[in-house]
Amino acid sequence: MTEPRPLRVGMVGYAFMGAAHSQAWRTAPHFFDLPLAPKLAALAGRDPERVAAAAEKLGWESTETDWRRLIERDDIDLIDICTPGDTHAEIAIAALEAGKHVLCEKPLANSVAEAERMTTAADSAAARGAFSMCGFSYRRTPALALAKQIVDSGALGQIRHVRAQYLQDWLTDENAPLTWRLDKTKSGSGSLGDIGAHIIDAAQWITGQDIAGVSALLETFVKERPVGGDFVGLGGAGQTGGPKGPVTVDDAGIFSARFDGGAVGVFEATRFALGRKNAMRLELNGSKASLAFDFEDMNSLWLYDAAQEPNAGFRKIQVTEPAHPYTGHWWPVGHGLGYEHAFTHQVVDLVEAIAAGKQPAPSFADALQVQRVLEAVEASAADESRWTKVEGA
Amino acid sequence: MTEPRPLRVGMVGYAFMGAAHSQAWRTAPHFFDLPLAPKLAALAGRDPERVAAAAEKLGWESTETDWRRLIERDDIDLIDICTPGDTHAEIAIAALEAGKHVLCEKPLANSVAEAERMTTAADSAAARGAFSMCGFSYRRTPALALAKQIVDSGALGQIRHVRAQYLQDWLTDENAPLTWRLDKTKSGSGSLGDIGAHIIDAAQWITGQDIAGVSALLETFVKERPVGGDFVGLGGAGQTGGPKGPVTVDDAGIFSARFDGGAVGVFEATRFALGRKNAMRLELNGSKASLAFDFEDMNSLWLYDAAQEPNAGFRKIQVTEPAHPYTGHWWPVGHGLGYEHAFTHQVVDLVEAIAAGKQPAPSFADALQVQRVLEAVEASAADESRWTKVEGA
Amino acid sequence: MTEPRPLRVGMVGYAFMGAAHSQAWRTAPHFFDLPLAPKLAALAGRDPERVAAAAEKLGWESTETDWRRLIERDDIDLIDICTPGDTHAEIAIAALEAGKHVLCEKPLANSVAEAERMTTAADSAAARGAFSMCGFSYRRTPALALAKQIVDSGALGQIRHVRAQYLQDWLTDENAPLTWRLDKTKSGSGSLGDIGAHIIDAAQWITGQDIAGVSALLETFVKERPVGGDFVGLGGAGQTGGPKGPVTVDDAGIFSARFDGGAVGVFEATRFALGRKNAMRLELNGSKASLAFDFEDMNSLWLYDAAQEPNAGFRKIQVTEPAHPYTGHWWPVGHGLGYEHAFTHQVVDLVEAIAAGKQPAPSFADALQVQRVLEAVEASAADESRWTKVEGA
Amino acid sequence: MTEPRPLRVGMVGYAFMGAAHSQAWRTAPHFFDLPLAPKLAALAGRDPERVAAAAEKLGWESTETDWRRLIERDDIDLIDICTPGDTHAEIAIAALEAGKHVLCEKPLANSVAEAERMTTAADSAAARGAFSMCGFSYRRTPALALAKQIVDSGALGQIRHVRAQYLQDWLTDENAPLTWRLDKTKSGSGSLGDIGAHIIDAAQWITGQDIAGVSALLETFVKERPVGGDFVGLGGAGQTGGPKGPVTVDDAGIFSARFDGGAVGVFEATRFALGRKNAMRLELNGSKASLAFDFEDMNSLWLYDAAQEPNAGFRKIQVTEPAHPYTGHWWPVGHGLGYEHAFTHQVVDLVEAIAAGKQPAPSFADALQVQRVLEAVEASAADESRWTKVEGA
Repeated sequence: MTEPRPLRVGMVGYAFMGAAHSQAWRTAPHFFDLPLAPKLAALAGRDPERVAAAAEKLGWESTETDWRRLIERDDIDLIDICTPGDTHAEIAIAALEAGKHVLCEKPLANSVAEAERMTTAADSAAARGAFSMCGFSYRRTPALALAKQIVDSGALGQIRHVRAQYLQDWLTDENAPLTWRLDKTKSGSGSLGDIGAHIIDAAQWITGQDIAGVSALLETFVKERPVGGDFVGLGGAGQTGGPKGPVTVDDAGIFSARFDGGAVGVFEATRFALGRKNAMRLELNGSKASLAFDFEDMNSLWLYDAAQEPNAGFRKIQVTEPAHPYTGHWWPVGHGLGYEHAFTHQVVDLVEAIAAGKQPAPSFADALQVQRVLEAVEASAADESRWTKVEGA
Repeated sequence: MTEPRPLRVGMVGYAFMGAAHSQAWRTAPHFFDLPLAPKLAALAGRDPERVAAAAEKLGWESTETDWRRLIERDDIDLIDICTPGDTHAEIAIAALEAGKHVLCEKPLANSVAEAERMTTAADSAAARGAFSMCGFSYRRTPALALAKQIVDSGALGQIRHVRAQYLQDWLTDENAPLTWRLDKTKSGSGSLGDIGAHIIDAAQWITGQDIAGVSALLETFVKERPVGGDFVGLGGAGQTGGPKGPVTVDDAGIFSARFDGGAVGVFEATRFALGRKNAMRLELNGSKASLAFDFEDMNSLWLYDAAQEPNAGFRKIQVTEPAHPYTGHWWPVGHGLGYEHAFTHQVVDLVEAIAAGKQPAPSFADALQVQRVLEAVEASAADESRWTKVEGA
Repeated sequence: MTEPRPLRVGMVGYAFMGAAHSQAWRTAPHFFDLPLAPKLAALAGRDPERVAAAAEKLGWESTETDWRRLIERDDIDLIDICTPGDTHAEIAIAALEAGKHVLCEKPLANSVAEAERMTTAADSAAARGAFSMCGFSYRRTPALALAKQIVDSGALGQIRHVRAQYLQDWLTDENAPLTWRLDKTKSGSGSLGDIGAHIIDAAQWITGQDIAGVSALLETFVKERPVGGDFVGLGGAGQTGGPKGPVTVDDAGIFSARFDGGAVGVFEATRFALGRKNAMRLELNGSKASLAFDFEDMNSLWLYDAAQEPNAGFRKIQVTEPAHPYTGHWWPVGHGLGYEHAFTHQVVDLVEAIAAGKQPAPSFADALQVQRVLEAVEASAADESRWTKVEGA
Repeated sequence: MTEPRPLRVGMVGYAFMGAAHSQAWRTAPHFFDLPLAPKLAALAGRDPERVAAAAEKLGWESTETDWRRLIERDDIDLIDICTPGDTHAEIAIAALEAGKHVLCEKPLANSVAEAERMTTAADSAAARGAFSMCGFSYRRTPALALAKQIVDSGALGQIRHVRAQYLQDWLTDENAPLTWRLDKTKSGSGSLGDIGAHIIDAAQWITGQDIAGVSALLETFVKERPVGGDFVGLGGAGQTGGPKGPVTVDDAGIFSARFDGGAVGVFEATRFALGRKNAMRLELNGSKASLAFDFEDMNSLWLYDAAQEPNAGFRKIQVTEPAHPYTGHWWPVGHGLGYEHAFTHQVVDLVEAIAAGKQPAPSFADALQVQRVLEAVEASAADESRWTKVEGA
């Protein structure tokens, strides 16, 4: 057994997503037989001391303080982008033009225009053998991957309803501080782009239907928040007194949708659903069967099969069988996986696609479609919720 | 202990709702101490043989084949209207003008215009001591009555999100027959008026906030269905072949809403959510606490109290304690109630209000507000989902 | 349609069980087509005023202050026994000897000896056309009746595990008063006979296997309790200070069992499982399928079918379909039933058996077998948990 | 920040447990700040080719084909024992005598006698600064660690009931092959020692009470199984035909228990609970509060607090808050962990104890107490379930 060729990774950014990606790159080879051997070659960040500390903690071999330098290096094969959305386009396009593969966190960009440029760059690079993928990691949660398999098998019949929610509660406290995630110039969007993007991608991917039009409402419940506060993680403690600044993104986004395959959908993303910590939920109702998922019970998928009537009922499939997507590489049945395993699976699929010379999914084009939905949602919300066609649909 | 004065009831209609109301009138005095003694005096229906058989089965003392005759009778104190929506206005107004109390099934009417005339008649009759109530029976489900108490106590703080669904699946089969419920001239509306009305009323009542505006989408998935089929109950078996006729109501209705107290809401009513049998669901997210309910587990109410963080969590209150609304009159804790108990509680509250000379709730005015929301939903759906103000809001 | 012949009922006792039985006798004819028409003819109780008040409240036509007089009356066809266990044998035997049908609450008696005499009397009376039934009402909970159907169909294969619990918490407070239920001379037993009897009967009935031997442990956590306290319902508030008396029954009973068909079982009955209000639970694991039930969610039955692997999972059957036992006589699917419906179904099955001249189930012989298990449990607990054969097994 | 001193680990065995331990040693330093830096120094196994392949896959720097050689090496500080139970005593004692720290998988040994010798060796080594720990990894599942904190706070009051189950189903198929786990000479025990040991340890640890006596029943449902079959993982597919050999361990073990603090317990371990994949469940009922846990929903802990009555209810705590045990080192709230995280936490606690020169928990003495319970269970089962005192209790 010869050691496979290395895939030398350079990562930009090392916050929440950087930690998750690092764990994935480190772990994948120990549980999966990969055709290329990932190396955590270099980590880029602006602050030399902090990037050095992060590299040591996360297991990266070297550091750079300018992502451009990372792209120039010959000993880097893939650029992994874990920075805020306003920087994605510039980094990704430069990397692709330099012949690097790219893994880019979601949302792909902060605008459709940026996403289009990135997609063009991706298509052009793919023709030269440099591939790109957008990090909609929930696609690799085993239960959602199984949902996709079940839908693809035709078991649901005609899908009529999509019910998608992403409910969190970490902004409920009105004294939670004003961070970059609440600043439109950095994040591009609030709950909609951050978590709404995940359910849009999941819904389109699993149903195999694109969203064709939407009617939307956006709401910012707390208009001002304290500035200058430290904010560790998502659930940082609030503080009172002191100056406040404006929240420029949505706290919650709600929209109805029509899919090009005939389904109708309801979507809701919020950070104010007190008690719901990470309730990324999806339900599909077809003419023959229904599926339901809630990330708060992430190792389960619920399936209702009308063929079993009158003794039918939603059944809770523990998605931990050897026959299920990804799970056979881990532990015996019933020994559940956690949040970060989806990132490991993402690395596995990406590495296999690159080694096979095939386009990984989701492509930048797939992510661009999500971006177009987000744009239609914002346009509808700004125009009295009027029905708005998704561009290109 | 002297026997209380009788309250002589005349009921019109004897299908599903008639059976539920009959059970309530019969049962209430055996579990509650009522200030008036209900008598099942007379049942009205057009077909003499069928109404006689129904009266015997349901326990009514006499019959009439014309509801007008019922209203003329001196020995009737209250008219209970269990007929389709297109007949409500005429019967209710006549009864009120004749000085009878009225209990009218929901939706109050098939149009705002009708509902307004009924409300005017109700107000006028109330001044003369004849009271009226609309049968939004879910208000008397103990778990929802407890939810109302908790919200009224201020425990939720500022309510930001309302999430309301009423999911059924009995039209999933596209060969289910074309009944009066799918004929707009009789039913006025489809899923929206039939089950959507319940969640609109419940959301407004529990939050204490009225819906001020909406953006909506209506969908009819199956445009034609077989005519002439027998249809027993809601879940009748479909048939194939033979002539078809048009479905003129909505199969599903989805809308977003803004409440006059600042909450935003998402509503969905459908008869195509395969596997969801009677999922009348309501979730409220406040600044201090959240509540969640699903009728498929009707004896439970879920409460999240942020004061318990970090060891908070939605707790499943079994709403069967002596201290809970209504339940102390029935069985020991943990011995759950069923669907029809809410109708018994409705009778209890109505009888107590009449005896006390007070307006029962929900009044026709409350039901008119629901009607106005329904009308706004239909108007928005017909106008590209554009934001539509609820009349009077 | 001629009115069916009457079945004139005389009931002894009017507490919790009396209220449940009354509701059943009143309600059954309105939802089911019965071959005999039950009449609530007479109610017996020692205190003339209290029995009169109860008769009025519960709907009985006349009263007696001595149950012997009830048995003497020619206009009574059936004696319904709702008194504490120490009186069952005398009343039931007298009634049967007088040619009356008998419905007797569980547990059948306070000893095997009594239960044997009752069974002898029942067998002898049955030969003369007077039938008897013991009120293990949970058999008529639709979900458990469906469980029985599924097991009878062979779907479970060989049953290996029985897991039965009946968990309540109303004695958790050590100041809850000393009532007759805690006095062995009246109640015969504590949690074991009161609620343990239900899970023993359910387990034997559904599996079709009798318990052949047991090993048991009984525990009384709180040895003394305040005397003289009023105690309304099961969950009465405790009081402090004042004199105390000894608790002479078990607070909790635990036993393992072997069934004559090869299954092994674990049983637990307690009134100290804080937070479990009426958790009457049963799980069966077979070689092909498993079933699980919890009365706290009484309208659901969970079924795991190994044939669906790897996408198997426990499915939650909402036992409200027209095709399910009893439920088609009530409401549409998803509109759940409550605790007392099982009593109505019990009346239906009893009346049908009597009209057909057939032995109703559970017979006194069935209840005697439960009594024998209870006796073996007590014997084992008194003998260092040693394995104890169930008499007759 | 200077790199901490290394802790050089030598591991024996590389099957299921070896993979889990390797992942823990690799991962811990990336999420926790450890006072010593674990090095995966050497892996021992008898087959040179297989151990070399395993070392490469799992990330170990060198290999040995004899565990004795591992113990002789000066560059090894800690021996991690992941072999079957019949080898634990010899390896652990040799390692401790050589001054190595030891982490030993559970059950500690196949007999009390072995476990006693190991405990003596451990005590003696601890005095010389070489520490030992037994791998009851479930103690480090965050929800169970939180349960321990809550009990320690006194929130439960007096604990009366312990209800512990470990339900799996991978032997349901009677053609599943005869592996070493079904051979008493290798495994020492069946379901009892394999999974029953976990719930015994968890129950004793969380309650702070030792089991003083037991009454037990053991059952082997399938007496013979096919020999010679390959068996990958726990859930291997069965085969038919061919020779069969005897199953010499229990398929299921059931016992009742009394704890030295006054609680009574029911325990059940089985590999035949069809549909239950890894249902390691624990419920405690106290005088003030109750707790419930099921590993199949491992990130949740259910808490019932009587102080909240009448609006109490079991609340589902998502054990993912920064304030919860271990979880703050991973992801934001609601982003659940998986099975193997407990092993990482085990490494963290072990390394911290070693660095601090303190005895880690569970010690060999703690594991010996579990072994004594197992022995009492077997003795009781062999003696007609007679009540059996746990040695030393």
